[in-house]
Amino acid sequence: MLRTHTCGELRIDHVGQEATISGWVQRIRNKGGLIWIDVRDRYGITQLVVEESNSAKEIVETSESLGREFVIQASGQVIERVSKNPKIPTGDIEIKVGQLEVLNPAKVPPFIIEDETDGGDDLRMKYRYLDLRRNVVRKNLEIRHQVSKATRDYLDGEKFLEVETPVLIKSTPEGARDFLVPSRMNPGQFYALPQSPQTFKQLLMVSGFDRYYQIVKCFRDEDLRADRQPEFTQIDCEMSFVSQKDILHTFEGLTKYLFKQVKNIELADFPRMEYADAMKYYGSDKPDIRFEMKFVELNDVAQNKGFKVFDDAELVVAICASGCANYTRKQLDGLTNWVKRPQIGAKGLVYVKCNEDGTFKSSVDKFYSQEDLKAWAEKCGAQAGDLLLVLSGETDATRKAMCELRLEMGSQLGLRDKELFKPLWVVNFPLLEYDRDTKRWYAMHHPFTSAVPEDLPHLESEPGKVRANAYDLVINGVEVGGGSIRIHNREEQEKMFNALGFTPEEAKEQFGFLLDAFEYGAPPHGGIAFGFDRLCALFGGVDSIRDFIAFPKNNSGRDVMIDSPSAINNEQLDELSIKLK
Amino acid sequence: MLRTHTCGELRIDHVGQEATISGWVQRIRNKGGLIWIDVRDRYGITQLVVEESNSAKEIVETSESLGREFVIQASGQVIERVSKNPKIPTGDIEIKVGQLEVLNPAKVPPFIIEDETDGGDDLRMKYRYLDLRRNVVRKNLEIRHQVSKATRDYLDGEKFLEVETPVLIKSTPEGARDFLVPSRMNPGQFYALPQSPQTFKQLLMVSGFDRYYQIVKCFRDEDLRADRQPEFTQIDCEMSFVSQKDILHTFEGLTKYLFKQVKNIELADFPRMEYADAMKYYGSDKPDIRFEMKFVELNDVAQNKGFKVFDDAELVVAICASGCANYTRKQLDGLTNWVKRPQIGAKGLVYVKCNEDGTFKSSVDKFYSQEDLKAWAEKCGAQAGDLLLVLSGETDATRKAMCELRLEMGSQLGLRDKELFKPLWVVNFPLLEYDRDTKRWYAMHHPFTSAVPEDLPHLESEPGKVRANAYDLVINGVEVGGGSIRIHNREEQEKMFNALGFTPEEAKEQFGFLLDAFEYGAPPHGGIAFGFDRLCALFGGVDSIRDFIAFPKNNSGRDVMIDSPSAINNEQLDELSIKLK
Repeated sequence: MLRTHTCGELRIDHVGQEATISGWVQRIRNKGGLIWIDVRDRYGITQLVVEESNSAKEIVETSESLGREFVIQASGQVIERVSKNPKIPTGDIEIKVGQLEVLNPAKVPPFIIEDETDGGDDLRMKYRYLDLRRNVVRKNLEIRHQVSKATRDYLDGEKFLEVETPVLIKSTPEGARDFLVPSRMNPGQFYALPQSPQTFKQLLMVSGFDRYYQIVKCFRDEDLRADRQPEFTQIDCEMSFVSQKDILHTFEGLTKYLFKQVKNIELADFPRMEYADAMKYYGSDKPDIRFEMKFVELNDVAQNKGFKVFDDAELVVAICASGCANYTRKQLDGLTNWVKRPQIGAKGLVYVKCNEDGTFKSSVDKFYSQEDLKAWAEKCGAQAGDLLLVLSGETDATRKAMCELRLEMGSQLGLRDKELFKPLWVVNFPLLEYDRDTKRWYAMHHPFTSAVPEDLPHLESEPGKVRANAYDLVINGVEVGGGSIRIHNREEQEKMFNALGFTPEEAKEQFGFLLDAFEYGAPPHGGIAFGFDRLCALFGGVDSIRDFIAFPKNNSGRDVMIDSPSAINNEQLDELSIKLK
Repeated sequence: MLRTHTCGELRIDHVGQEATISGWVQRIRNKGGLIWIDVRDRYGITQLVVEESNSAKEIVETSESLGREFVIQASGQVIERVSKNPKIPTGDIEIKVGQLEVLNPAKVPPFIIEDETDGGDDLRMKYRYLDLRRNVVRKNLEIRHQVSKATRDYLDGEKFLEVETPVLIKSTPEGARDFLVPSRMNPGQFYALPQSPQTFKQLLMVSGFDRYYQIVKCFRDEDLRADRQPEFTQIDCEMSFVSQKDILHTFEGLTKYLFKQVKNIELADFPRMEYADAMKYYGSDKPDIRFEMKFVELNDVAQNKGFKVFDDAELVVAICASGCANYTRKQLDGLTNWVKRPQIGAKGLVYVKCNEDGTFKSSVDKFYSQEDLKAWAEKCGAQAGDLLLVLSGETDATRKAMCELRLEMGSQLGLRDKELFKPLWVVNFPLLEYDRDTKRWYAMHHPFTSAVPEDLPHLESEPGKVRANAYDLVINGVEVGGGSIRIHNREEQEKMFNALGFTPEEAKEQFGFLLDAFEYGAPPHGGIAFGFDRLCALFGGVDSIRDFIAFPKNNSGRDVMIDSPSAINNEQLDELSIKLK
């Protein structure tokens, strides 16, 4: 037997017993005729002790031959430590080594295997199997396991059935770019890897499965940003005979359950916000509501006073930064430069200090009286000591810039605590958005999303005004999940394809099976998908999803550890009836 | 609200309450001024009743307009039925319809949606979403959900961590053919879809994850038989610091747990059989041990008596069919013809009837005395009334034929009850098998399997004699899972690649990351993978795995419902830097 106990298991109660452990050498110390060896496994660290004068010669020799990360097996009596280590659960005991064996030696690792490591990104990715030994990385994957298990437990309790949908499916030009797989048995034809199991889960509703879920790999062949991966995981769900309210209720329940199970946090009920309000008050469809600092529109009090910048602006909008009236010239210049960076794109920043003495000091004092500024401050609910920050310009761009400025101020004021979680439902997104380059409308969510019923009659006349029966779950400014009530009627689905510029032939070729299915008794249905990698990252308090994926790819879509993708041989190409260009 | 209750929920206790249900019209009857409508959902069937004389005109009209598979919503009071239906849980009640709405009409389905259907395979696959409505098919997927949930519960309890491994990996020529995915970002290079997460799970052991599992899609681009699918699912597991015994113990525990949870069957401890014995006594590496009928080798008592067929044979082998001495001439001829079919390939069949009066009657009476035949019967442990069936020839082919004959006799004698489950571990397979076509050795399991330690010294001198530290779980003659203790030492792994004909450069190019990993402290480890689709089929008492896959592909690898694979456009080909041949 290679071990009787793990390295995290022995306690004071085991003293006197014989035990065998196996694991990795974490550290070796040698002092006053004693050799201490810390042995590590997934469960913890246990200390071995070898008395040089009192032990068999081989044991001493083996002990002295050990290096970091050697895999060893040790047996002996569990004894009470002289100097205990209260920081670790096994800190009361050590094993007095009676037998010691090297199961596998180890070369010196290319970087230090501790929470703080000297290994750069590239090196750690090449030796990912060593990086995964670090506690911080392993714990991320343990969180992932916990989130997954708790998700399944909750959904199983709610009578959801897990159904696996195919990975080799059909390419559809709509949406992001597909990964394609040439078919050997059907020369010249290709499968696609799914961007989501959307149509399959809808068909399962047509089949009467009623409640479906799957934790499932999805694929997008997009140019990768730091926070994107070509393969990613979704918690994918669908329900029949439900309204938006039912879905929000069920998945608010799931989210609360996960926070309770994984983080022992009891979340309050989630507020719901119309998309239009999210944009108006936060300039974003994923507001971070850990802090207020809502947008206040000042057009009525700030325009027509002779300040041309504001007078010409479509929108004049302010936020109120509590207690920041004491910002220095340098700080204010810093913020101004910050908003003028290309990625924010504001032309400038107006500030108003609400002084403790009731006066106001602004960067636009020559255009506005104390009276005027007081009116602004009142509109913003500002108190003495607060600072107003004002941007202006075209509405969408100004809101976007103000959103960034608000988040920056939130960070500067310490209002974005990673251990505070504030979920929010954002509902009723626009159904369609117009793309000026391709001169057509695109589905904001996807082509299967239904319209808010009272808006439906305007689909042909005013497509941009129609709201979708769609919803996103946002936590701390991160979009964690999103979904919609779907179209379940052939005619309505055909109208939608038409609005998106599909000819009837194209619609039929790509989605004929779904249109057909809607004619054989399709129930009203809707669903949601959670970005599982992102959800785990949120639980772990980390921004990058890559830290929560065991074997991630880099920004060129490469796995540098296994060196993939790679060239294939001509025989393989021939079999697939393809050639390289 | 679209429903207050499901169609499987209402009982006598609900009588008097108002209820709303939604579902599919299963059946409509019209008699004596009453219309009965059976409404179906996943949970059951509830009967609606409309009194023609006593109901609003619209309700009567709507009722009369309904057809099979219409999706409807109905509200009304729950009342006690006059004539109850004890066959269904809701059979005591019905709903007296006060409101009735068609949520979606349905065309007449292309086949009957009942357990017994008139739809052929092709039609049901094209309209799989309708086929999935049938109770028998839906129940299969419910079993699949249960097996999956119970597997996770058990493994979670045993401290296994679920870790997702990548789907876009690297092609390796060893083993079956890979599905390949051209990389757009790395022109001329390809990913492969995994045939199993083998190397990744081994790396996770090197990382110290200790106990890993995953229920994971795997892919093989092989020519498909009825019982193969290009994408299939495995329960994939790996453990560190274990011997074969530990793994068998853990996964025998899993299997028992699944049978208890899913079928409420308590399995006894599983016997273990050496591969060599399985071949000797059952002619198969996956014996069906629901019945005995073991092979008995008769060479010593049947040879050198002048019967040239036996004298020239490498093997003379018998089985004893209890109580079959009364088989007629016609039955015996039938069996002879059966074993002579090309797929069995025997040259002939010798029988010996052990008559009730103690005499023997055989098809080779002119070569063998009663004494001789008595010796055979004794060797076979045959009783009066039994029938011996004897085959002879080259050892491997004869065993294979006898294996088939044994299974056939087991079926004829009703010894293969689908609700009786007899698991068996078959252990210590040969490590390598020689392929005469390519004139090289292949790994019988895979190149990462370790040898039984005492056989290892013979790897270079007598590769065919070396046993692998490998094991299969066989239930009722079906291979349900298999695995091995792995090599965890670079030198041993290099020797194995060498035995398989890899040059050192090839080994390094394809598996360098694993060889490197073994030098940084790899623990002893081993694992197992269960064929999840097949396991579910076994639980469902069905032979074909296709019935347990929601959206299977046909024998040409096509999904005829979505019509995939399909042609892609030139722009897509260009982006991938490939051309069609």
